[in-house]
Amino acid sequence: MRGKFITLEGGEGAGKTTLIKAVQAALAAKGLDVVVTREPGGTPGAEVLRDILLKGATDRWSPVTEALLMYAARVDHVERLIEPALARGAWVISDRFADSTMAYQGTAGGVPLDRIRQLHAAALGDFRPDLTLVLDLDPRTGLERTVARGEDATRFERFDADFHARLRQAFLDIAAAEPDRCVVLDAGSDAGAVAAAALQAIETRLGAPA
Amino acid sequence: MRGKFITLEGGEGAGKTTLIKAVQAALAAKGLDVVVTREPGGTPGAEVLRDILLKGATDRWSPVTEALLMYAARVDHVERLIEPALARGAWVISDRFADSTMAYQGTAGGVPLDRIRQLHAAALGDFRPDLTLVLDLDPRTGLERTVARGEDATRFERFDADFHARLRQAFLDIAAAEPDRCVVLDAGSDAGAVAAAALQAIETRLGAPA
Repeated sequence: MRGKFITLEGGEGAGKTTLIKAVQAALAAKGLDVVVTREPGGTPGAEVLRDILLKGATDRWSPVTEALLMYAARVDHVERLIEPALARGAWVISDRFADSTMAYQGTAGGVPLDRIRQLHAAALGDFRPDLTLVLDLDPRTGLERTVARGEDATRFERFDADFHARLRQAFLDIAAAEPDRCVVLDAGSDAGAVAAAALQAIETRLGAPA
Repeated sequence: MRGKFITLEGGEGAGKTTLIKAVQAALAAKGLDVVVTREPGGTPGAEVLRDILLKGATDRWSPVTEALLMYAARVDHVERLIEPALARGAWVISDRFADSTMAYQGTAGGVPLDRIRQLHAAALGDFRPDLTLVLDLDPRTGLERTVARGEDATRFERFDADFHARLRQAFLDIAAAEPDRCVVLDAGSDAGAVAAAALQAIETRLGAPA
């Protein structure tokens, strides 16, 4: 039986990594083959593109070029990791996917959303996640978390506050437009509560795994 | 007055570099500001992508991923070099452009041409060259020339003979479909004759420069 494809979306520092670990453990405990991956990246080719996308000056690439690079990485990721895993029955959890391109390069970056939809269709046809968990958080809180982790800021973290505010709204708009696919989680709650809400959504939307 | 955008297309070893030098000299002698560039590449960002595209195993990228990477490089090239040059009145000559994606990743690589057209529209709208010179040559002759030059083979030169035969036909098909934009030149002629035919086409199609 074909597996399920779950994506996590949200701004910087929303707690996607922590939540993925909790979901992975819970699904693996039910005996599922679980594959955890991330975007941009996830395959050797896409990780090369990740480096190119996340390093350098904020104006290294225009938003349109960024969107194309994201989709180049995404197609490599889907063709060589996600689709083969789903075909063998695995459940795939990805830290970010296509909604991030709509939010970062589209709503926040200024690329018309119709052009990104056209790009998605050219690149991947109607391939999309079975379930998307949107981690919603005040961007100031999220950026404080990434600073507290002591990480080097990526290009996107160095964009201004207004960019991050547009980003938050973009994810909420996507969830509102596709309620059958998306569930919004309050990422300001403690990690245990976020994980419980996520697992509840997975069970309700995707059914109890065999 | 806005400049003109001329592209050269064709298989490997068709003599594009030699022809570009002749055209550049002839246009510069008329007092034009001439910018010579190439794809993939032409800008610092696009040259990084050129390396990624031309090096490595033939199956490093799927044809769809390749097409997306080509368009990422192309948008950087258009936004940061070609369009600003045309806007200031320069004549821009590019060694390859969008037709190469249709031929290499489309007809020869198997990506449906409609998906590449959709990708072009998403990336560049209706931006296209004012004139395209297609250098037509038996691919065996072309590959012999690249071997004789002693160059390391790029990923594309290492594709098989059937690929290169499809490539030749693809460029001829493009020229037949868009006769107002494209002129086919017999690249088996000597370099002087090819240059004379090219300059004739430039004068006829684009008018005598001011």
